[in-house]
Amino acid sequence: MDFTVSEIIALCGGRLRVGDPDFRVNGFAALDDAGPEDLSFLGNEKYINDYLSSAAGVVLVVPQAPIAREGMVLIDVENPSLAFSQICEAVQSKRPFAAEVHPTAYVDPTAEVAGVMVRANAVIEAGARIGRGTEIGPGVVIERDAVVGEDCILFANSVVRERCLLGDRVLLQPGAVIGSEGFGYEFVDGRHRSIPQVGIVVLEDEVEVGANSTIDRARFGKTTIGKGTKIDNLVQIGHNVVVGEHCLIVAHTGIAGSCTIGNNVTIAAQCGLAGHLEVGDNVVLAARTGVSKSITKPGIYWGVPAVPIHEEKKSVVFTRNGPAFRKELKLLRKEVNELKESRDS
Amino acid sequence: MDFTVSEIIALCGGRLRVGDPDFRVNGFAALDDAGPEDLSFLGNEKYINDYLSSAAGVVLVVPQAPIAREGMVLIDVENPSLAFSQICEAVQSKRPFAAEVHPTAYVDPTAEVAGVMVRANAVIEAGARIGRGTEIGPGVVIERDAVVGEDCILFANSVVRERCLLGDRVLLQPGAVIGSEGFGYEFVDGRHRSIPQVGIVVLEDEVEVGANSTIDRARFGKTTIGKGTKIDNLVQIGHNVVVGEHCLIVAHTGIAGSCTIGNNVTIAAQCGLAGHLEVGDNVVLAARTGVSKSITKPGIYWGVPAVPIHEEKKSVVFTRNGPAFRKELKLLRKEVNELKESRDS
Amino acid sequence: MDFTVSEIIALCGGRLRVGDPDFRVNGFAALDDAGPEDLSFLGNEKYINDYLSSAAGVVLVVPQAPIAREGMVLIDVENPSLAFSQICEAVQSKRPFAAEVHPTAYVDPTAEVAGVMVRANAVIEAGARIGRGTEIGPGVVIERDAVVGEDCILFANSVVRERCLLGDRVLLQPGAVIGSEGFGYEFVDGRHRSIPQVGIVVLEDEVEVGANSTIDRARFGKTTIGKGTKIDNLVQIGHNVVVGEHCLIVAHTGIAGSCTIGNNVTIAAQCGLAGHLEVGDNVVLAARTGVSKSITKPGIYWGVPAVPIHEEKKSVVFTRNGPAFRKELKLLRKEVNELKESRDS
Repeated sequence: MDFTVSEIIALCGGRLRVGDPDFRVNGFAALDDAGPEDLSFLGNEKYINDYLSSAAGVVLVVPQAPIAREGMVLIDVENPSLAFSQICEAVQSKRPFAAEVHPTAYVDPTAEVAGVMVRANAVIEAGARIGRGTEIGPGVVIERDAVVGEDCILFANSVVRERCLLGDRVLLQPGAVIGSEGFGYEFVDGRHRSIPQVGIVVLEDEVEVGANSTIDRARFGKTTIGKGTKIDNLVQIGHNVVVGEHCLIVAHTGIAGSCTIGNNVTIAAQCGLAGHLEVGDNVVLAARTGVSKSITKPGIYWGVPAVPIHEEKKSVVFTRNGPAFRKELKLLRKEVNELKESRDS
Repeated sequence: MDFTVSEIIALCGGRLRVGDPDFRVNGFAALDDAGPEDLSFLGNEKYINDYLSSAAGVVLVVPQAPIAREGMVLIDVENPSLAFSQICEAVQSKRPFAAEVHPTAYVDPTAEVAGVMVRANAVIEAGARIGRGTEIGPGVVIERDAVVGEDCILFANSVVRERCLLGDRVLLQPGAVIGSEGFGYEFVDGRHRSIPQVGIVVLEDEVEVGANSTIDRARFGKTTIGKGTKIDNLVQIGHNVVVGEHCLIVAHTGIAGSCTIGNNVTIAAQCGLAGHLEVGDNVVLAARTGVSKSITKPGIYWGVPAVPIHEEKKSVVFTRNGPAFRKELKLLRKEVNELKESRDS
Repeated sequence: MDFTVSEIIALCGGRLRVGDPDFRVNGFAALDDAGPEDLSFLGNEKYINDYLSSAAGVVLVVPQAPIAREGMVLIDVENPSLAFSQICEAVQSKRPFAAEVHPTAYVDPTAEVAGVMVRANAVIEAGARIGRGTEIGPGVVIERDAVVGEDCILFANSVVRERCLLGDRVLLQPGAVIGSEGFGYEFVDGRHRSIPQVGIVVLEDEVEVGANSTIDRARFGKTTIGKGTKIDNLVQIGHNVVVGEHCLIVAHTGIAGSCTIGNNVTIAAQCGLAGHLEVGDNVVLAARTGVSKSITKPGIYWGVPAVPIHEEKKSVVFTRNGPAFRKELKLLRKEVNELKESRDS
């Protein structure tokens, strides 16, 4: 990472307010961490003090921002946060890529890997097909007849089991498991007999799956994650679940088998959904919500079992005030007893 | 997958009601997904409309089921769901197996792997012994002196640490970790000093462990999972836990150290058990239950802390009605005050 | 493992009360599991019956403990539990170590691995530097330019992504992921656009990370885990989180992005912390606590949202007594109505 201020401006479309266009930066950092050779940005008014005392060499700011100190190069942009992301992305696109199979990787002769980067100790089994521009990370396992699209990154030690289908520009973080067997048993003669799970998982284009998350293959048919949906770390998606497009599913959430989730749904961390439910488009589940009935109306839901968030907030207030209510109830009882005595005397 | 209707009938013991016994199918699918060369089944009345409009080539049905349309082959069976499973299982048993060590795998010369399939880039360390008919998946690591029984499948990138013992027909889904060190520390001189975890994990016959689940080795002695118990994905089992036979433990559940769980216990998703507890035979914990005291009486429990499910349901109703109670309490206060004024005036 | 009683005494500093100093043991076990060639210990009065009936060959006891039976060797120590740990540790330090790269491992020529044990099928990429005495387990992946200190153990299939920094004596349990990308998106034109995550993770000296736990790299700057902090299995730590020194973070806990956790904080199992919060030194969060506001005052907290534990306990009692309160409220209503009628008649 080594850029001139001019190159930075070329990447994000800003305007140099003060400083030398040939000044060089070689790192990114937050305002309070940055040194004299780092690029930083003031994305939010609330970091103004960090900005004023920052040692950063170059800072992306809005045109209205004051000058922090002499010697700091300032680049004016409309949206410093977005500009910073664009620069990072441009740099990231320099992630080294070479369409070659590492000598320690194993690629079955019947697998298709033209134009693919296969890194050390990866395994690609018979019949698998990988699209051009895709990086298969170290230790990744792609099992028989699985299909991975173009321009994907499968990070270290992730696993795609047999016959699963991944679209283009899919990301698997390290340790993600796609296509494990669903948790389905029939209790026969005093023991749990496995119900065969012969379906697959389909991840549509631009799906991202977090580190060590697990997505079970369908009993038959397919478990589907819709286009553009992003899944965080340590999430569990059961067999035959269908998740729509452009959803966000945050860490430690579990979705039981055969649920159907709409489009643009946000499921915050540590939620749980019982099996065979429907969650409609644009629903938001706040963190730790437990859903036991289908939710069709858009809105924000919270609690166990899930209700509209304003209702759950009232329940929480009620519970928290419980000891006061209890006291008041006792007092009322005493006073009513006294009133009854007065009446009867 | 390519079967004739006659072959299907041979596998599941049904009776051809209508259609050609030489008709061929090459896939499985749900009724609403199936195409003209797929086998499907009508397992439940509620899918009758999917059945009536299905494009499936062959469908397993109960004898009372109507004929959906001309050209659809129907096979009558008593239990279509079970029959379908039997067929899937028969097909799955065709999972390719060859008792050979892949050239990219590493097997220590002192390990025993006769009759074992060791796949690409697996690692089997010194002194490990693997039983006949077992498949060691790609990237799997079996550490020193571990023992794995016969006819097991250890899926990709799962790990069995040193000296752990797995019975026969055990399944580890991808990324499962058996024998990680228990979380035990003594706070000495301002820092947490590790308590050595020198025990092992024992998985008895037919235990199944889900993807990326973790089972800690005992401090000393053993952590035991009883025969036939099935564990879902992302479950954590602490050191020295003893789980009985034929239990089900669903995703994201955590069982803290030294718990003892009986036989035929069902623990639904996202439950948590504090350390050193006992849970008796036939107990059922509903999803998200938190157990902080031993439960010896069979029954269904729910809530944090766990109580019989009907009690927790009443508590939930009470909490949800909190705002109404609050209002009523205020009204009673007002009326009692008025009554007191009347009395005193 | 084969020790004489004299050797055991040399390791833990005890005093032989009864038995032969040349008696040999070859295993460790709990009192109720131990056989005649095992070493065990009586760490707690409550196990006295296990002790009295134990078949253990040698037992560490306090001087006041009775003699269980003839033929059992007894070693008196002040703290049997600690003594037992010391012996286990001494034995564990015999974990085989050889500073060599296994022939099936891949180490990039530009990586530094002098004095390091690199086990089968591990991958160490360009520019990585590993300190002396460190063991890189089977299937472990260390990506470009990552730095690992001295005397660390990275267990099987763990992953350290590019540029992350691990101190000395760090432990990663199997499957742990260090440096996955943070979960950060901007919603632009109807889709979630990734915010580049170009920072790193820093694990300071003596940090331990549990099996299949995940720690995300910072958006920029660093995610930091302070010296001596221990993290259990299946824990998720978000991007830009700063955890202090000597904390304990138990299984299934999730800490959202940009949280700052102080020193000596204990976070029990299955807790969740929303993003951008502060938790001060010496705070304890009981299991399953959900934190949505910063907590600066030391103390024990519980509930969702978190409150001091005695308050949450009262709320739980209130909720559990809900049906009784409801009944009392109905009765009061009836009686007040009667009083009003009496007054008005």
